[in-house]
Amino acid sequence: MKKIVTPHLLAAATVLSALLWTPTAAQQADPLPSWNAGQTKQSIVEFVAAVTTPGSAQFVPPAERIATFDNDGTLWAEQPMYFQLAFALDRLKALAPSHPEWKDTEPFKSVLAGDLNRALAGGMGPLMQIVGATHAHTTSDEFDTIVREWLATAKHPKTGRLYTEMAYQPMVELLAYLRANGFKTFIASGGGVDFMRGFAERVYGIPPEQVIGSTGEVKFELRDGKPVLLRLPALNYLDDKEGKPIAIYRQIGRRPIAAFGNSDGDLQMLQWTCAGPGARYCLFVRHTDAEREWAYDKWAMGNLEAGLKAAAGNGWTVVDMKTDWNTVYVFQKPGRN
Amino acid sequence: MKKIVTPHLLAAATVLSALLWTPTAAQQADPLPSWNAGQTKQSIVEFVAAVTTPGSAQFVPPAERIATFDNDGTLWAEQPMYFQLAFALDRLKALAPSHPEWKDTEPFKSVLAGDLNRALAGGMGPLMQIVGATHAHTTSDEFDTIVREWLATAKHPKTGRLYTEMAYQPMVELLAYLRANGFKTFIASGGGVDFMRGFAERVYGIPPEQVIGSTGEVKFELRDGKPVLLRLPALNYLDDKEGKPIAIYRQIGRRPIAAFGNSDGDLQMLQWTCAGPGARYCLFVRHTDAEREWAYDKWAMGNLEAGLKAAAGNGWTVVDMKTDWNTVYVFQKPGRN
Repeated sequence: MKKIVTPHLLAAATVLSALLWTPTAAQQADPLPSWNAGQTKQSIVEFVAAVTTPGSAQFVPPAERIATFDNDGTLWAEQPMYFQLAFALDRLKALAPSHPEWKDTEPFKSVLAGDLNRALAGGMGPLMQIVGATHAHTTSDEFDTIVREWLATAKHPKTGRLYTEMAYQPMVELLAYLRANGFKTFIASGGGVDFMRGFAERVYGIPPEQVIGSTGEVKFELRDGKPVLLRLPALNYLDDKEGKPIAIYRQIGRRPIAAFGNSDGDLQMLQWTCAGPGARYCLFVRHTDAEREWAYDKWAMGNLEAGLKAAAGNGWTVVDMKTDWNTVYVFQKPGRN
Repeated sequence: MKKIVTPHLLAAATVLSALLWTPTAAQQADPLPSWNAGQTKQSIVEFVAAVTTPGSAQFVPPAERIATFDNDGTLWAEQPMYFQLAFALDRLKALAPSHPEWKDTEPFKSVLAGDLNRALAGGMGPLMQIVGATHAHTTSDEFDTIVREWLATAKHPKTGRLYTEMAYQPMVELLAYLRANGFKTFIASGGGVDFMRGFAERVYGIPPEQVIGSTGEVKFELRDGKPVLLRLPALNYLDDKEGKPIAIYRQIGRRPIAAFGNSDGDLQMLQWTCAGPGARYCLFVRHTDAEREWAYDKWAMGNLEAGLKAAAGNGWTVVDMKTDWNTVYVFQKPGRN
């Protein structure tokens, strides 16, 4: 084909480019279909419009559009127990044959006897023992494989679904909507960072380097001259409460302009985010739907009491799952399974 | 203007689009003009071609194209002292009037008397005292302003240039070249993370969230109900030697496929990077140019002896600055100032 470019064709091409780039029906469709119309949804859309409209007094350059999300109870469910704890218990059972001493040692003994309440009665101490025994003594690569294999097969005890199917569809849509508007989305969770990285990209579209979480001690070791990172059974950093804004400062180095949580463990992250200048958005997800999910403000491992007070006092948004979300999990949609 | 789209015009537009998107001369030009032709430059270009060519046996998906760079001595100069130390000394002098006790207390006394060797004779202890006194006791926001103000005015003692002008032009080109080929570029440096964030985006094109470095302790505090992050005079994490691959694992969560350093403090990062499967690229910058820069393999705060051995044994690339770079700093280019 001859390459002939005349001024007329160039002009025609320019006009056509403009015509061809008119938003399609799909682009104009509601980007948050699982959110019911109402004040909550409207507040999200208005915030995004304010910070992305050039010339708006509240315009924020794309590089500064940082949004941070808690994970458990905010992006996916956390009942009847944190899914990472379910992973730890499954792994503890799998490892038990190699640890005959666990039969006589708490908290392992009670876990193996199926009495989780008794195993965890001592609080953080036994919990950290369980996490240490099940999240360490492997290399970084081995642990990643173990997590991914578990996620590919383990089922939630109530729904019988893969845990990764229990991501909140409205929040998955919100993440995508923010990214489509130039935001960079991060997780900032008390969960183990390397557990979350096993699914965050696939399920939420959040790459490993945008996942902030709790970390364990790690040792660099040369094995036959080949370096490995060995996971040790000791906590390095607990990314919860005050720890969240501090970890965000250390790892992101910019104050988010939007933050999303569901418990008092997220309160300081929201406080720090919404104390910055300019347009800010802080939101708590409130679990109000006993039928499709669970209804609670307070549970064994958390509480939203202080958060609800802070939200009321600061004008933050509170999602009422029952009324604000027309879908919780994508598998609950009519015609889906 | 009427919007009329006929099949003929559509076809013409398609052809024109293809014609108009032919690479321009600028796009085809050498992306690494400050690198002399030779084995070093060729090795970079060949590696990038191998991992980015679809269908290549060594193809790496964009999301996994992670490259990590040391900063001092790798991306910018580090003589006659780390630039961050120059910042600390300047700030110490600025703070001295409010600290009359420093006149009689080491290491401050010797710094104020201009005797740096004596001040630092005690090694890490006095160094950390100086860093603590000059990098803490401010909020996160205040410190960021202090760093940016210093960088905007302080001059290098040898060249009389702003410190940010002493970035290595070939490395700035390399960063841009990698990003143009789908890489995500990170800093992994022993330097303070919040000092580097004061210039990394502007000088290197590396956003704050892709800067990994040493960190101090931080305290979350409510002041009149408003949260601040208060910087404390204590080290939290030293991102050096074994600390580099560990911090990369914790913060990026993926093993880099390329790593760049200039000292034994970077050795473990390169070892871990190049021990992964598939195509890998590890490079040491060697300071061989006494005229345009400095010539050294060993200095007060570092050493490249083990690194050079490892490079020879593993087939890593070693940049000879004198022969591989036709330009060190952009201000040395003929006709530039």
